[in-house]
Amino acid sequence: MQCDTLGIGLAGVGTVGSGVVLALDRNGELITDRTGGSVRLAVTKALVRDPAKPRPAKLAADLVTTDWRELVHDPAVDIVVELIGGTTDAFEIVAAALRAKKPVVTGNKALLAERGVELFALSREFDTPIHFEAAVAGGIPIIKTVQDSFIGNRIHSMSGIINGTSNYILGRMTDAALTFEAALAEAQALGYAEADPALDVNGWDAAHKAILLATLAYGFPIDPAAIHVSGIEQVRPTDIHFAKTLGYVVKLLAVIREHADGAVELRLQPSFIPKSHILASVHGVFNAVAVQGDAAGESLFYGRGAGQDPTASSVVADLVEAARSLRQATGHRGFLPYRENGRILPVAETSTAYYVRFDVTDRPGVIAEVAKILADHRIGISGTHSPVNPDNPDAEFLDMVFLLHTCPFGKLQTALEEIEKLDCINSQPVVFRIETMG
Amino acid sequence: MQCDTLGIGLAGVGTVGSGVVLALDRNGELITDRTGGSVRLAVTKALVRDPAKPRPAKLAADLVTTDWRELVHDPAVDIVVELIGGTTDAFEIVAAALRAKKPVVTGNKALLAERGVELFALSREFDTPIHFEAAVAGGIPIIKTVQDSFIGNRIHSMSGIINGTSNYILGRMTDAALTFEAALAEAQALGYAEADPALDVNGWDAAHKAILLATLAYGFPIDPAAIHVSGIEQVRPTDIHFAKTLGYVVKLLAVIREHADGAVELRLQPSFIPKSHILASVHGVFNAVAVQGDAAGESLFYGRGAGQDPTASSVVADLVEAARSLRQATGHRGFLPYRENGRILPVAETSTAYYVRFDVTDRPGVIAEVAKILADHRIGISGTHSPVNPDNPDAEFLDMVFLLHTCPFGKLQTALEEIEKLDCINSQPVVFRIETMG
Repeated sequence: MQCDTLGIGLAGVGTVGSGVVLALDRNGELITDRTGGSVRLAVTKALVRDPAKPRPAKLAADLVTTDWRELVHDPAVDIVVELIGGTTDAFEIVAAALRAKKPVVTGNKALLAERGVELFALSREFDTPIHFEAAVAGGIPIIKTVQDSFIGNRIHSMSGIINGTSNYILGRMTDAALTFEAALAEAQALGYAEADPALDVNGWDAAHKAILLATLAYGFPIDPAAIHVSGIEQVRPTDIHFAKTLGYVVKLLAVIREHADGAVELRLQPSFIPKSHILASVHGVFNAVAVQGDAAGESLFYGRGAGQDPTASSVVADLVEAARSLRQATGHRGFLPYRENGRILPVAETSTAYYVRFDVTDRPGVIAEVAKILADHRIGISGTHSPVNPDNPDAEFLDMVFLLHTCPFGKLQTALEEIEKLDCINSQPVVFRIETMG
Repeated sequence: MQCDTLGIGLAGVGTVGSGVVLALDRNGELITDRTGGSVRLAVTKALVRDPAKPRPAKLAADLVTTDWRELVHDPAVDIVVELIGGTTDAFEIVAAALRAKKPVVTGNKALLAERGVELFALSREFDTPIHFEAAVAGGIPIIKTVQDSFIGNRIHSMSGIINGTSNYILGRMTDAALTFEAALAEAQALGYAEADPALDVNGWDAAHKAILLATLAYGFPIDPAAIHVSGIEQVRPTDIHFAKTLGYVVKLLAVIREHADGAVELRLQPSFIPKSHILASVHGVFNAVAVQGDAAGESLFYGRGAGQDPTASSVVADLVEAARSLRQATGHRGFLPYRENGRILPVAETSTAYYVRFDVTDRPGVIAEVAKILADHRIGISGTHSPVNPDNPDAEFLDMVFLLHTCPFGKLQTALEEIEKLDCINSQPVVFRIETMG
């Protein structure tokens, strides 16, 4: 076996990048042993914005550069790790690395979800892999699992809790009866949420990950504009409480499912899931993905969804993968799209039961008016409830909740648009999916 | 990319073997697509004991042989799948395949646990991999996860529920208050337990799997004689009930843990685990393995532990792995031991708290006598209980339960040997570990 050292060009030495340096320092010998002496890794170049900034990982001054071109084209760099985030410079770095036939390891879900078509085309053209285990669910090896371990399975569905920040916030709203705002502030204080938490709470961080999972499972690139995403900003203590009384918990759930005609359902919404389902036990910042394969049956993969060390664990696994492919004359383990005619099911055609909360002005006839419109659209009502505000039983404004039978989302949307026009309805209704997890 | 078909020699066309044939029929095209056209698989020879026996998988008559030599040495066979079980013929088949430089895929945990040293030596000598995802936890890709995805992790510990039959039986004893015998009979009627359930209920099926997991994590072969195994035959409704009242559930748990001095703890015993721990939610014939890595942190992998399709899913993933290594000039992904100085911690030195049940003849002074011996050995008692038999409150024989503080198992064993000699003790005490899962 060859055992000369492979050089890593580390673009971005923030939290995760430092974790990679530390993991290689700590376990580099172990990795070499486990690969039968064939893989030895060392950081040979590191891209940073500010070389003077103190970092947990020590890097020799001559390894550091502020010019990504220098990193990618350094002859001592065999593999490029992209951890700078964003979709502009990161795109340039990844594209240049592929063109230079240097395998890429990235944790950048937005980059691959938004610009994967271009990058996978380069990957194919230059026969050079892009590895992205770190882009989905931190330390959980869900990418390799779907891509390699389930390669003999048709994937019926995947359901995932893949944003730890949202899951933490919903958990605190449930366990400590906090408001969304209070739970978010707590998450920020603990470092679980960014100063700007938008992508976490609006669902798009999770949506990017879901797009990558669906692309892996079904083989075609997915346009982010084609999928339905809603976040957790609208979740109120009322909803959490109501879910509880019905035997559910509220989770921000990614649902990916192949229909009989081959269309792929893919959506990201706050959902009621049965308390007894194993995903209901995924607490705090943990992530989990449940996978239904035609052969493997029901599986679940659970672990830390983010953080320095877990994400570094995935980067390091990909580095070994990349190192191994460099040892081969041809072929690698990177994903390449293999289907062109994939179709995303329009969200209007996806069906579940629903919980809908309206903000209404309380006056006689409100329930009847809303119920009539739902009936006109042939949407069944399984329950309705108007919680009385104990502090102010005569309040003029209140929450009114409807539980609705399974129907296509499009039908519900049409009915809701009509209901919104009623003068007693004060704002856009808030919709939760009720998932049977069957 | 080359895309000529690789030939599979399928030794054993029982439940799992038929599942492999069916999976390749169903998803062969998908596998080829997902490998960028580089892997096409077909069964080119099948070893059966009785060609006349009807099977769910149809095989052309000219593919079938009853002579394993014919299968291994058939030039149309590129990869050998060993699914016949046992450790004699199976050993010959695997050894001959390795010598012929044909990669091996096997689901035979007993073979690798008992004779892995010899087989991995051949694997090294002939630079030919043995893949064994199907040997541990059916459809859960725990082998690849530990070996590849966690390659950058020092594995602190693994805790696993890796025998579905035992888990089903314990579950029914818990949920339906069945006796061991009644639950076993039910499992047999449902096809979850073999006619001879010995290896499942005595813990050795799970122990073989635990040996493989520990070998993967720590790199050295483990002598089955060096580990402590006890099964679930001694579990009584009393124990299940007692565990419940204390906030625990009873599980047959594999515990694998690296100590600070590098010694590896490895044991298989009925255990009390906290009801709130995620492993407590693993019901029925499902399996799960919780892994603690120094980088990945806490993870859990859950799924079907046995059965035709889940196990075939793992075989097929390994077939693709084997096919890929055949495409390379050198190198493969099979496991090879990489450590020679590994040490298994003697079970006497492993410490937990305990639940111990004695079968005693009721007479004044019994508790005092047992308690005195425990005190002499400096083993702390956290509780004791003698359930009264409601049908016969004056019964002469009864169960007496002691809950004991954490101490080395060896110390407990010495004390128990002394206690057994008391004339009021009627049989060997039954010991459960109380796990904190910390």
